[in-house]
Amino acid sequence: MRIAILGFGVVGSGAYEILTHYGYDVKKILDIRQHEGLGDKLTSNFDDILNDKEITVVAEAIGGLEPAHTFVVKALKAGKHVVSSNKHLICTYYDELHRLAIENGVTIKFTSSAGGGIPWLYNLKRGTRCDEITKVMGIMNGTTNFILDAMITDSRDFDEVLKEAQALGYAEANPSADIDGLDTARKTAISSSIAFDTIIKEEDVNVFGLRNIKKADIDYIKSKLNKTVRYLGFGIKNNDTVSVFVEPTVLGYDQLEANVFKNFNMITLFGEGVGRLSFYGQGAGKYPTGNSLAQDAIDILKGDTALVYPTKEANIDNGVCKRKYYVRSTEDLPCDIIDSKEVIDGVNYILTKKIGVKDIHSIANEIFAKDKCAFFAGIEE
Amino acid sequence: MRIAILGFGVVGSGAYEILTHYGYDVKKILDIRQHEGLGDKLTSNFDDILNDKEITVVAEAIGGLEPAHTFVVKALKAGKHVVSSNKHLICTYYDELHRLAIENGVTIKFTSSAGGGIPWLYNLKRGTRCDEITKVMGIMNGTTNFILDAMITDSRDFDEVLKEAQALGYAEANPSADIDGLDTARKTAISSSIAFDTIIKEEDVNVFGLRNIKKADIDYIKSKLNKTVRYLGFGIKNNDTVSVFVEPTVLGYDQLEANVFKNFNMITLFGEGVGRLSFYGQGAGKYPTGNSLAQDAIDILKGDTALVYPTKEANIDNGVCKRKYYVRSTEDLPCDIIDSKEVIDGVNYILTKKIGVKDIHSIANEIFAKDKCAFFAGIEE
Repeated sequence: MRIAILGFGVVGSGAYEILTHYGYDVKKILDIRQHEGLGDKLTSNFDDILNDKEITVVAEAIGGLEPAHTFVVKALKAGKHVVSSNKHLICTYYDELHRLAIENGVTIKFTSSAGGGIPWLYNLKRGTRCDEITKVMGIMNGTTNFILDAMITDSRDFDEVLKEAQALGYAEANPSADIDGLDTARKTAISSSIAFDTIIKEEDVNVFGLRNIKKADIDYIKSKLNKTVRYLGFGIKNNDTVSVFVEPTVLGYDQLEANVFKNFNMITLFGEGVGRLSFYGQGAGKYPTGNSLAQDAIDILKGDTALVYPTKEANIDNGVCKRKYYVRSTEDLPCDIIDSKEVIDGVNYILTKKIGVKDIHSIANEIFAKDKCAFFAGIEE
Repeated sequence: MRIAILGFGVVGSGAYEILTHYGYDVKKILDIRQHEGLGDKLTSNFDDILNDKEITVVAEAIGGLEPAHTFVVKALKAGKHVVSSNKHLICTYYDELHRLAIENGVTIKFTSSAGGGIPWLYNLKRGTRCDEITKVMGIMNGTTNFILDAMITDSRDFDEVLKEAQALGYAEANPSADIDGLDTARKTAISSSIAFDTIIKEEDVNVFGLRNIKKADIDYIKSKLNKTVRYLGFGIKNNDTVSVFVEPTVLGYDQLEANVFKNFNMITLFGEGVGRLSFYGQGAGKYPTGNSLAQDAIDILKGDTALVYPTKEANIDNGVCKRKYYVRSTEDLPCDIIDSKEVIDGVNYILTKKIGVKDIHSIANEIFAKDKCAFFAGIEE
């Protein structure tokens, strides 16, 4: 059994170094760029991998939808196991890729697609074997945590910190997937799909971005509420329905998440038997994420090729879950949901009563049409 | 493949309920007590299990050394896989039990012996497959964390809180294993054995108990150092040697461990590739620990019977690792290790310079001979 790696970028090269250092056989690496020292392992032609019968595990670390999707589909159809760090791919084609794996008697593993070096999805899946998962939640995006931590610790504003994160390589030139919440939404959808034995799509997730947060929000939350903020994804089961959402979230200082700094991640499951179980570590990076990708491949090499296809119809209802919110806007909210309001320099600082997640996101869309700088954050109690 | 459970106490009954609820076949339960509703599954004769060829996995949840040791040895020699939640057994007979398992072509798993419901040892072992572990550390004892949290939060003294913990069932009538550190020392030894691919014994671990902590210590650490205290085990690799110790430890408020409250545990590995990876959850209890015991059994039923016997000679040197210490005593420390000293009501409150762990424990033994109430705590920087 030999391994091929698709994409020799940060994660692919990390997994390659780890696997070869520990004696695992990486036979081919697909990349259109030239790389020193890879010799005839390097190819730019995917057919070299597809047609190689010795290669039984394909590790996809290209990222994005194409050509990753085409390659992964071909690999599965050719009876090769797939491991992938690609959250966009896994979230978008969760159903198709699982079905293809089952039809072709292989498995697909994607621990490294959420939580980077944290064996989060691996343990979540293991947890579902003999427990009922009722909730998943967590800080799943290191870029936004780095930004929030820097804003809070150094009392700086969003734009300035984002520029620094970009200079340090923590944020992309186009940071939208991070700061508008798509990245966290995909990881939340994948996590919730495993936790609740169903298929949850990116578009099922109600998302408040982090882009609009200002130093003024952090100051208000600190001075008036004696709390702090983190950017969290949630999947919550309520009887037969599931609520999934991503929101800046106001937290007490003694919450574990409030003590997650820099670009670290912390992701949590709540099981009826096991209780709260949290996992903390590096959510990105060459060796951490490379480690997770390598571990999935090693599991397969050691014979763990089990695959579970979701058995339940998704029944998403984001209105069932109710939270209080902190809102800062030049606009006003409907009177009946306001618990308290303070006007500072013509801007409303509002704390709401408990309201359904779906409902506040619907109201927020109306507010954003008039005040595109408004900021919404759930309050964790 | 069918399972037998030895001991139908808190953990054994939890594992039984979980395994049967999820469709796994528990054929026999060994207990000398009567239990309703178990029918002919219940036996008080271990031979009924030993001689039953259908039983391939024995889950030991008796606790203590005997008769657990005799039963586990017999089970391994009979070619049955063993899972165990018994840290005392595993720590004491680590070498013998691993050798017996290998000789008889079976495995022994003991995730539930450290961290309760946290899949700590499971992930630590998985982590060693493709990473170099340089350090393990953590809050591994819920009883002492409950006591510390109550002392800190409610500004109460040790004896009073210990009595409450006993009344709540968090502490034993004889609390020595918890508050004198044996329990944490065993878990630290087991964790370090896995992490560093060697065998570390209970007696290798330098231990400062928690028994002597007073409200005065917590007040001093809070008011003078602006820090707090947790009870931690450490295994640290320094080139070819390993240091292992258990100490009350002074921490900043923004450390994750400082935000672990009640009887929760948090245990951490540091890997060269993966970085810091922490695991947080319930360190004890019927369903959490029962879950871990059941999970190990399920892994075996699903074909994961790999076993790794430690390959390296233990080279323990607790003098290599150097820390600063907080010391409260009526006695004085050697001048050359004192960084600062304050005398309050005739009692010395000392902060030391950096000193080897082995050296401070040696000095402490001399101090304890004269002041049996002295308190020592490492300072985490």
